[in-house]
Amino acid sequence: MKATPLLLCTTDADFEARFQQRLHWSAATDAAIEQRVAEILADVRARGDAAVIEYTQRFDGLQVEGMAGLELKQDELKAAFDGLPEVQREALQAAAARVRRYHEAQKRASGESWSYRDEDGTLLGQKVTPLDRVGIYVPGGKAAYPSSVLMNALPAHVAGVGEIIMVVPTPRGERNALVLAAAYVAGVTRAFTIGGAQAVAALAYGTATIPKVDKITGPGNAYVASAKKHVFGTVGIDMIAGPSEILVLADGSTPPDWVAMDLFSQAEHDELAQSILLCPDAAYIEAVQASIDRLLPEMPRAEIIAKSLNGRGALILTRSMEEACAISNRIAPEHLEVSSSEPMRWEPLLRHAGAIFLGAYTSESLGDYCAGPNHVLPTSGTARFSSPLGVYDFQKRSSLIEVSEQGAQTLGRIASVIAHGEGLQAHARAAEMRLASS
Amino acid sequence: MKATPLLLCTTDADFEARFQQRLHWSAATDAAIEQRVAEILADVRARGDAAVIEYTQRFDGLQVEGMAGLELKQDELKAAFDGLPEVQREALQAAAARVRRYHEAQKRASGESWSYRDEDGTLLGQKVTPLDRVGIYVPGGKAAYPSSVLMNALPAHVAGVGEIIMVVPTPRGERNALVLAAAYVAGVTRAFTIGGAQAVAALAYGTATIPKVDKITGPGNAYVASAKKHVFGTVGIDMIAGPSEILVLADGSTPPDWVAMDLFSQAEHDELAQSILLCPDAAYIEAVQASIDRLLPEMPRAEIIAKSLNGRGALILTRSMEEACAISNRIAPEHLEVSSSEPMRWEPLLRHAGAIFLGAYTSESLGDYCAGPNHVLPTSGTARFSSPLGVYDFQKRSSLIEVSEQGAQTLGRIASVIAHGEGLQAHARAAEMRLASS
Repeated sequence: MKATPLLLCTTDADFEARFQQRLHWSAATDAAIEQRVAEILADVRARGDAAVIEYTQRFDGLQVEGMAGLELKQDELKAAFDGLPEVQREALQAAAARVRRYHEAQKRASGESWSYRDEDGTLLGQKVTPLDRVGIYVPGGKAAYPSSVLMNALPAHVAGVGEIIMVVPTPRGERNALVLAAAYVAGVTRAFTIGGAQAVAALAYGTATIPKVDKITGPGNAYVASAKKHVFGTVGIDMIAGPSEILVLADGSTPPDWVAMDLFSQAEHDELAQSILLCPDAAYIEAVQASIDRLLPEMPRAEIIAKSLNGRGALILTRSMEEACAISNRIAPEHLEVSSSEPMRWEPLLRHAGAIFLGAYTSESLGDYCAGPNHVLPTSGTARFSSPLGVYDFQKRSSLIEVSEQGAQTLGRIASVIAHGEGLQAHARAAEMRLASS
Repeated sequence: MKATPLLLCTTDADFEARFQQRLHWSAATDAAIEQRVAEILADVRARGDAAVIEYTQRFDGLQVEGMAGLELKQDELKAAFDGLPEVQREALQAAAARVRRYHEAQKRASGESWSYRDEDGTLLGQKVTPLDRVGIYVPGGKAAYPSSVLMNALPAHVAGVGEIIMVVPTPRGERNALVLAAAYVAGVTRAFTIGGAQAVAALAYGTATIPKVDKITGPGNAYVASAKKHVFGTVGIDMIAGPSEILVLADGSTPPDWVAMDLFSQAEHDELAQSILLCPDAAYIEAVQASIDRLLPEMPRAEIIAKSLNGRGALILTRSMEEACAISNRIAPEHLEVSSSEPMRWEPLLRHAGAIFLGAYTSESLGDYCAGPNHVLPTSGTARFSSPLGVYDFQKRSSLIEVSEQGAQTLGRIASVIAHGEGLQAHARAAEMRLASS
């Protein structure tokens, strides 16, 4: 098996076209899926628990008498944790502690209420409060990742969310002990073994058993993504994720094997994942390709890695590190490794990325699991306008305004003029009534 | 003409049902509009400027030779400002200065980059950067509000957005001088006289003339709302707004005329706007109804006000102020006035609201125009999970991680255990390669 990412050079005449072609990805919108999801949502909204039980039986082959059969009780989560080997228990707890610490710093830095007063005593500010109740969607099957449970639940916890409701499908009753253990470590409030559009519907509308939430986060398949888009507005949702991506900016100072393995670690997710290397050193690119050739046969997931690298990977020779940074900004990658001996020289040039991994020791996989920052990141170039999942996604803000009697005199005159200009006379009168001379 | 909001009492046996019925509102999704919008988006994406010119002629009756005829140049914006009466120029500038000051405080409080280092030298943090280019949709016709130009453009400016592209339809060539002047005051980069789904498409995909933006904010009609939902993902969008709402919590200490006028100032927006009063004092509710009766005939927009109050308004007698606060939390109103002599006593009980106006002097209209906070607020109960438009909507975050050689030893072991547990061996190997003993 061979993995040969597309080799490009920015000085090639056809670089732009081939680069664009390789980058291209668009979410296929499938009208049949949309239609099916709309029906499931309407049905769960109308029939509640009964519909949830039926769909779970039909899609997950899970036969239960009632909703109690679809709930994971706290003692089951704890038992899953207690049943793990000690090394896994410790790793989950260590990762959770670091993720929690990072998000606590995030809350202190950007998630606290604030206010100030004008000289006339008028108070202006913003009150930051947690959401009451959120739902976390955790995929079952091959992409059931305990780390995702931590990354979704812990920021909600740190934000102060009162109740965290987890849903995780268990096709044919197969439970993932690590996922259940992670739910225990992360302090999930309630957990249900349901999935798909029916789980999203249950969380968005509520049923007799499943509490209606204010926001739903977490990744899922095409049905889940479509359902989340549908219920957006009734509840909040996080981003709709595309395939995962890594971009490595290399100056040639990192061992080529390390960079090859970092490209693999993205490619092993799935065939549509994208791994790109940008480097101004042709000999180093050759060395990385040699590492790929040598290391690939050892990898258990070699087939997926090869398909991903052959279909969507690229090794791009640039004129300079500056040019590499500029290209990176055009891509706005989900994961950006600055594999350089002077990462802080390049960091200020990097404007758009979900997460920036600085220096040779910062492999993306350390960030994925336990460095602390969130691994739920904007994909497909959406880092141009969106952010990693964070405490701020589980908080909302209310403006605070207390106009003093004196302040009402100044503000009332301004408001009156603009309101009359907009033809909104009641707005104007409401302001004018507060004027002392009125 | 009479305006008689529904009178409810929380002790009534049928309170819950009647309360729910009055609150109910849902965005009608019109399949015909969806289909038409999808066609317009695809057409503008394929044909660019030519399609924009055609749709603008068809829908706005605006005949132009080329795209130059659809651009408002800076000198036209300035001329509109210079042509205003001095009192309007001053009011716009005073409002802009206050809105800018508030959003600068918001940026300092919650929008700055931060980082910390572990004892082993590992750096963790988040870099906050502005979006490169945003689009602001400003409705034309009856809802053309200069204040909305300020409220959308100024936070983008304060965030540091490089280019702010405004679109505003001018049906049959009618330009609103106050809107153009507000664009001048707010420092809009470029402005085009286009609207509808075609304007959203032009901003989302870009044309030869209209620059592709990273995010689109601002209110619009059903076509605009549908188009924004469609392009979500290609670009960022702000919330999809429902009808405007005010909730007044009154303890009976504010002059009833003031409260009546505050209810009017919401109701005059449109027939679907909702004005609700919650008060534990039956005599005060009667006094507010008397004020409504006396003041309504004076109002130029009396007809709209009456329709809104009769169709969607409510005066609710509660057992106590505490109960009024609890009901307010269930509604999660866009605008919440605490018309009380001790507003700070009730403020801590109020968990969900777009903006909270504290005390008798803080009429909503002061906040709408010039107090400083943004008037783009979450509607229809979405204050449960979303926030006022703010500087944070025009910024995005990138996680920063620099793992030290020493840090890689601790983190690598944790990551390796979890990665093997998830069956992602390349993730594990990438971490293990950084271990000194490897």
